[in-house]
Amino acid sequence: MVPTAAGDRLGVWIVGARGSVATTVVVGAAAVAAGLAPPVGCVTELPDFRGAGLTPVGRLVFGGCDITGVPLAKRAEQLVAAGVVPADLPAAVGGALAAAEREIRPGVAAAAGRQAPQATAIAAQLAGFRERHGLAHVVVVNLSSTAPQPGPHPAYASLAALRAALDGPEPVLPPHALYAYAALGAGCGYVDFTPSGAMRLPALAELAAEAGVPYAGNDGKTGETLARSALAPMFAHRALRVRAWSGTNLLGGGDGATLADPRAAASKNASKARSLAELLPEPVEGEVHIDEVPALGDWKTAWDHIAFDGFLGVRMTMQFTWQGCDSALAAPLVLDLVRLLGRAMARGAVGVQPHLAFFFKDPLGSDEHRLVPQYELLRTWASPGIPDPPA
Amino acid sequence: MVPTAAGDRLGVWIVGARGSVATTVVVGAAAVAAGLAPPVGCVTELPDFRGAGLTPVGRLVFGGCDITGVPLAKRAEQLVAAGVVPADLPAAVGGALAAAEREIRPGVAAAAGRQAPQATAIAAQLAGFRERHGLAHVVVVNLSSTAPQPGPHPAYASLAALRAALDGPEPVLPPHALYAYAALGAGCGYVDFTPSGAMRLPALAELAAEAGVPYAGNDGKTGETLARSALAPMFAHRALRVRAWSGTNLLGGGDGATLADPRAAASKNASKARSLAELLPEPVEGEVHIDEVPALGDWKTAWDHIAFDGFLGVRMTMQFTWQGCDSALAAPLVLDLVRLLGRAMARGAVGVQPHLAFFFKDPLGSDEHRLVPQYELLRTWASPGIPDPPA
Amino acid sequence: MVPTAAGDRLGVWIVGARGSVATTVVVGAAAVAAGLAPPVGCVTELPDFRGAGLTPVGRLVFGGCDITGVPLAKRAEQLVAAGVVPADLPAAVGGALAAAEREIRPGVAAAAGRQAPQATAIAAQLAGFRERHGLAHVVVVNLSSTAPQPGPHPAYASLAALRAALDGPEPVLPPHALYAYAALGAGCGYVDFTPSGAMRLPALAELAAEAGVPYAGNDGKTGETLARSALAPMFAHRALRVRAWSGTNLLGGGDGATLADPRAAASKNASKARSLAELLPEPVEGEVHIDEVPALGDWKTAWDHIAFDGFLGVRMTMQFTWQGCDSALAAPLVLDLVRLLGRAMARGAVGVQPHLAFFFKDPLGSDEHRLVPQYELLRTWASPGIPDPPA
Amino acid sequence: MVPTAAGDRLGVWIVGARGSVATTVVVGAAAVAAGLAPPVGCVTELPDFRGAGLTPVGRLVFGGCDITGVPLAKRAEQLVAAGVVPADLPAAVGGALAAAEREIRPGVAAAAGRQAPQATAIAAQLAGFRERHGLAHVVVVNLSSTAPQPGPHPAYASLAALRAALDGPEPVLPPHALYAYAALGAGCGYVDFTPSGAMRLPALAELAAEAGVPYAGNDGKTGETLARSALAPMFAHRALRVRAWSGTNLLGGGDGATLADPRAAASKNASKARSLAELLPEPVEGEVHIDEVPALGDWKTAWDHIAFDGFLGVRMTMQFTWQGCDSALAAPLVLDLVRLLGRAMARGAVGVQPHLAFFFKDPLGSDEHRLVPQYELLRTWASPGIPDPPA
Ligand SMILES: NC(=O)c1ccc[n+]([C@@H]2O[C@H](COP(=O)([O-])OP(=O)(O)OC[C@H]3O[C@@H](n4cnc5c(N)ncnc54)[C@H](O)[C@@H]3O)[C@@H](O)[C@H]2O)c1
Ligand SMILES: NC(=O)c1ccc[n+]([C@@H]2O[C@H](COP(=O)([O-])OP(=O)(O)OC[C@H]3O[C@@H](n4cnc5c(N)ncnc54)[C@H](O)[C@@H]3O)[C@@H](O)[C@H]2O)c1
Ligand SMILES: NC(=O)c1ccc[n+]([C@@H]2O[C@H](COP(=O)([O-])OP(=O)(O)OC[C@H]3O[C@@H](n4cnc5c(N)ncnc54)[C@H](O)[C@@H]3O)[C@@H](O)[C@H]2O)c1
Ligand SMILES: NC(=O)c1ccc[n+]([C@@H]2O[C@H](COP(=O)([O-])OP(=O)(O)OC[C@H]3O[C@@H](n4cnc5c(N)ncnc54)[C@H](O)[C@@H]3O)[C@@H](O)[C@H]2O)c1
Ligand code: NA
Ligand code: NA
Repeated sequence: MVPTAAGDRLGVWIVGARGSVATTVVVGAAAVAAGLAPPVGCVTELPDFRGAGLTPVGRLVFGGCDITGVPLAKRAEQLVAAGVVPADLPAAVGGALAAAEREIRPGVAAAAGRQAPQATAIAAQLAGFRERHGLAHVVVVNLSSTAPQPGPHPAYASLAALRAALDGPEPVLPPHALYAYAALGAGCGYVDFTPSGAMRLPALAELAAEAGVPYAGNDGKTGETLARSALAPMFAHRALRVRAWSGTNLLGGGDGATLADPRAAASKNASKARSLAELLPEPVEGEVHIDEVPALGDWKTAWDHIAFDGFLGVRMTMQFTWQGCDSALAAPLVLDLVRLLGRAMARGAVGVQPHLAFFFKDPLGSDEHRLVPQYELLRTWASPGIPDPPA
Repeated sequence: MVPTAAGDRLGVWIVGARGSVATTVVVGAAAVAAGLAPPVGCVTELPDFRGAGLTPVGRLVFGGCDITGVPLAKRAEQLVAAGVVPADLPAAVGGALAAAEREIRPGVAAAAGRQAPQATAIAAQLAGFRERHGLAHVVVVNLSSTAPQPGPHPAYASLAALRAALDGPEPVLPPHALYAYAALGAGCGYVDFTPSGAMRLPALAELAAEAGVPYAGNDGKTGETLARSALAPMFAHRALRVRAWSGTNLLGGGDGATLADPRAAASKNASKARSLAELLPEPVEGEVHIDEVPALGDWKTAWDHIAFDGFLGVRMTMQFTWQGCDSALAAPLVLDLVRLLGRAMARGAVGVQPHLAFFFKDPLGSDEHRLVPQYELLRTWASPGIPDPPA
Repeated sequence: MVPTAAGDRLGVWIVGARGSVATTVVVGAAAVAAGLAPPVGCVTELPDFRGAGLTPVGRLVFGGCDITGVPLAKRAEQLVAAGVVPADLPAAVGGALAAAEREIRPGVAAAAGRQAPQATAIAAQLAGFRERHGLAHVVVVNLSSTAPQPGPHPAYASLAALRAALDGPEPVLPPHALYAYAALGAGCGYVDFTPSGAMRLPALAELAAEAGVPYAGNDGKTGETLARSALAPMFAHRALRVRAWSGTNLLGGGDGATLADPRAAASKNASKARSLAELLPEPVEGEVHIDEVPALGDWKTAWDHIAFDGFLGVRMTMQFTWQGCDSALAAPLVLDLVRLLGRAMARGAVGVQPHLAFFFKDPLGSDEHRLVPQYELLRTWASPGIPDPPA
Repeated sequence: MVPTAAGDRLGVWIVGARGSVATTVVVGAAAVAAGLAPPVGCVTELPDFRGAGLTPVGRLVFGGCDITGVPLAKRAEQLVAAGVVPADLPAAVGGALAAAEREIRPGVAAAAGRQAPQATAIAAQLAGFRERHGLAHVVVVNLSSTAPQPGPHPAYASLAALRAALDGPEPVLPPHALYAYAALGAGCGYVDFTPSGAMRLPALAELAAEAGVPYAGNDGKTGETLARSALAPMFAHRALRVRAWSGTNLLGGGDGATLADPRAAASKNASKARSLAELLPEPVEGEVHIDEVPALGDWKTAWDHIAFDGFLGVRMTMQFTWQGCDSALAAPLVLDLVRLLGRAMARGAVGVQPHLAFFFKDPLGSDEHRLVPQYELLRTWASPGIPDPPA
């Protein structure tokens, strides 16, 4: 891989480029770069990352694909109406929106027919994007609607099996995984911000190694699970015995609708439950509900209720209500992830990047789920002078 | 100091021995030792501390002083009525209560007259307690009612100045600090579980060094502040800009009444505010209220409301309600602290013990306020084979 | 019907007599009558009902049936352990528990075989209970586990059709409705504290008229729905536009387990949803969840989140958390209902008693769902000198 | 008084005309009248008031006074930035804002010097306003910053004493009460939306009778107290024993700053406490805090915690968090009050209007504090054909 100086531009190719999070990323990056908005929520703008040599937000080049045709400028206005994006911003960053608009291609809506050529076409789109902007590196980010985790399939077991199956007449990869396959093959880094779990397929992990590119995932940690990853260690380390941890999520905008489909919700629920199980010493009672409440729009409201026992079995409770704007929480993390993965690519890192666990509900390559230790791992990795672990 | 094998018994001399927390400590230690209650809430019973060579809970010997005469057994029944102690326990551990009762002496109610002889008398009580039970080490724990932080005073500047002043006709140390002086002088370790702040007096820090004993404090971290020390890092590390952090504490039992006195509340509030200021990158709006609500008894209810900005200045909120039993939260931490300080004494450690910051709202000798890193510091210190830092 | 003076004793025959609510009723009635506990939660002990001529709590005679054999004394101890009943009460009211125990008969567990003789047998049990204690009146209260609402069935359309079907070989009424049939036929008043909805069957309403007895129901209003019936009118009368009303119920003890069965939960959910629809001018988004969380025992915790628009479409929210002990909330209402229905019987009232809507989630015979107007209706009906409406 | 047909225009003269609530009133009235916003929050637009013959919102004529000079259009933009008023509205109702701007006069900032001529000047302003717009009736509404309740003073005891004192050299009425005096004297109806309590002065009540005009007050019921007036009756009517009712209010915009001044807060707190005492049968523990949190702007957040006992003394709790936009809650009530008081004037009603208790925290002339009965009183008064009670 060709190391890049911080000055070079880094490509960001978004699968689901017209979604709520994606649009907030493009508008936000331009606003922050132009000094129209403070970099609040951008981890990589914290003092701890000053010396990490990351590509400045203003030198990110956006492109991607989507299966809807709604113009970015229209989506930005919708986010203004939803209270996610300040009213004056879309107009002020019109140029950036137009530039990204020019680089958005129609996406693959469904797994259909022979997929090998479809992968080749995507790889060509990526290569074209790279050349048109003279980009040393491109990071592909999956921000498409949550899809069910791909079930076990012989073609997923090895790269060879996968390549053979993709050549066959029948589709074998769901669209999001087909993009992952094409991206890795085209030498792009890959970030899965969704719980759809493409990089849990052994064949794709093998491809990343073969292509010599880094990847990270799964499922951006933005609301309820973020709070859980900060709070659960408090109970564990103080030996307080959690008996039940119940959660109800109310959300309307963006992904809300998709999660009304039980199968899609299943992958989201599984990744939420997994993260809690990792953080607490014993299994606990309690269910998680994800209710689609259109009236709430992008304002995700999560109520968690924790029943726990203390000394001599005394029963106590803690409850919290999180009222956050999902897209506004996710977007800066996407900017962080592409800049950090860009640094990994510049340093020749290959395969899963465990130090990015800090950003994910269901982190690949790491069994550290506690938020603060995850931060320390990231901070240490990003400190100048610390070489990357060998591939 | 005479190193002790784990088998030896460790003295625990409690200032405020008839208080809610103190009584819960004595009842709880006996119950856990007798297997009548699981060690829920006892940090030092976690797997991470198995190899730390701590004195078993059953080999702790209790004594202390108080300015009320209410028998421990009566206080235990009150805690049963308050729902803090299970109904059947006091009878089941009657023997332990009686043993502790025999070792409780009248305390010094107020700073009055010439204090040198009063200190000598306390030291004699401590020495007697140690000899009667053949104890290698004694840890003195301050669990007396919250007192105002001692204001600046020339006698506090050095041990020599303090000794001279104590010899004079006028009192110079508030009771809790007089006990600290006597304890350190008598070669006892000292834990200040209150925000009263004796060990912030340079003269007493000097005394600890001279006596070659370790100490730790201030102000047990049990409820609202515990949750803050877990949550605040989430906002800091995710670059979320906290604008206001408001807190309302409702409590009735034990210390509730004392905190109705504004001066005493001031030291509690100061220690709460200090901890938040350490955890967040910039000052935030919001007030803390501590309301005495007798009807709530020992059930401290704390509501915190956090207003924070995210990406592009989007306003979001988080609120939590903590409903915990203060004495049940504090008591196991006292057992942890005496066992850990006992280990420090056995290893010849002297002066402030920064690795105990995990237990305190306003930790001495450490500027690490984040709960999980505090835990890692403690776990590392307690790992077998890691020598103590030189005195 | 034989009018009774207030001095006479009133029979209370409970279907589900060994349940959490039923046991709390028997223990509580005895405790209040003996002055061992204040009549907190007893509406009919409020000053507004002093002149209503109700049977004193001490002159209620308890009996009933259940399909488990767990002794009442044992159930009472379980309620002490669950924190519902104060520790010392069961022993103090041992006599009352034993008296009730003697009057509890095995219940009909399932709808099986020819039901006419089963109804006759129940009627005989009721008559025996009445004679043994010289009772002028008996009120039968359904406190058995929530059952699904009986679906439409030709036998339910008229009393004649029902009698014919009951004589046939196949069962036609679920157990709770069979008890209702027997009770009304035996001249007993009937209260359905459950959402199982027997009295929504036209045949049984017809029977009540024929037998000349009053009845009331459905589904005791104790927790989340009680709060909704007080809060929803605030939004309606202030023209605040509720957009979504979401609710999550966490409960463990008693009925919690039953409600884990979706069909039983359906009748509970339907009655909750119906009550909200009556209280608000337009349909609203939001779902209701009833989670079985054994760890919470009898402590039902309900979180409701209300998203509403105000002037100029400004979005606002209100959320509440109700932490109540279901059985302790239900039991006093059962005492109120039997005393009030006893008064109705003494005054020769027949058929549905709309003025008891105050006690029910899904009130029969009344379309007034607002809590305070319901109270005014009850208070007015209970005022001395106000004759009952003609049958 | 000259009865008016519904077609005639009604004058609304606002003391504090440039405040947050006042500006929202003017913008909102124009928006609703122009069909740019639905009449959400307007009680008098509910079906129950269709036949009440109220002046349509579009036929209200606005004027008033203030002690700042900030143009209404500027204040409206500030309310857009605060999220209170939708972005596009101020421009769309520019004409209405300009018309009101023309009718705003400088207010009396402080009680100084001889007040009789000041009162005469205000009366002249009111008369001029009435003539310029050919208004049959004018209602003066106090929306100025909360002021301390005027302490006892001989001049307040009777109209004669007051007139004499006003003629003296020293000021005797705080500005808000001076306006009330001038308004009533000029034949205007008077609504005190603040807790400043002018109409609790006997002299001013006497003046209203002499002038033959109606008045209503005190302190608009919009947030925490509104919820309390709906919830407290639930505890009272279900005989649930409230032991403590604690409240914390966090508010930034508008009145927030004023309430930071303890004396002003005192009148607000007193009116809050009074309303709770009226609603519950016995005094309860718990404090009310009003914290100024500028970061929250107009978003008033109130957390209430209610500790109550149920049957057999079982302790339960309810807590709620109200997150409302104060100005958006208050403004429609001001429109309701002026339209209803306009109807009272048209029907020759004189003196306090108890049926308007529904709108006030501390209602004059009524001891009914329960929200729903207050609504029924209002609805009945507004029903066509029901004559006003004789003056
Ligand atoms: N917002 C958060 O806090 C958060 C947190 C964790 C994970 N995520 C994940 O991020 C993703 C995006 O969330 P969002 O709120 O922007 O959702 P969204 O629905 O607004 O956007 C998803 C976009 O993906 C597009 N899409 C769907 N299928 C596609 C395909 N086959 N090819 C290309 N594009 C496709 C859709 O057209 C849409 O524009 C979701 O998977 C969500 O689970 C979001
Ligand atoms: N419970 C918690 O969660 C918690 C947390 C942090 C700090 N603390 C601190 O622990 C201390 C004890 O709390 P508690 O709830 O047991 O209070 P408590 O009031 O029940 O007990 C305090 C005891 O100290 C005794 N005392 C007062 N002055 C004394 C003196 N001069 N000499 C000897 N005894 C004296 C009192 O008589 C009383 O028995 C308080 O200072 C409190 O601030 C408690
Ligand atoms: N507790 C509340 O707040 C509340 C509120 C509204 C309604 N309810 C209703 O009251 C009822 C009782 O609640 P609970 O908490 O006591 O439940 P529970 O499960 O403790 O008691 C139910 C009892 O009914 C008995 N039973 C079941 N089927 C029977 C049959 N066919 N014949 C006779 N007995 C039978 C069970 O054995 C059990 O003892 C439930 O239907 C519940 O929905 C309760
Ligand atoms: N917003 C609510 O929910 C609510 C509820 C109940 C009561 N109130 C009361 O309504 C009033 C207005 O609230 P707000 O949020 O608009 O406050 P605000 O501070 O925005 O407006 C008050 C206005 O009064 C003006 N003023 C002050 N002294 C004056 C004087 N002597 N003469 C003329 N004008 C004067 C100020 O300049 C300001 O423009 C307050 O008294 C408040 O307590 C408001
Ligand atoms: Na604390
Ligand atoms: Na209920």
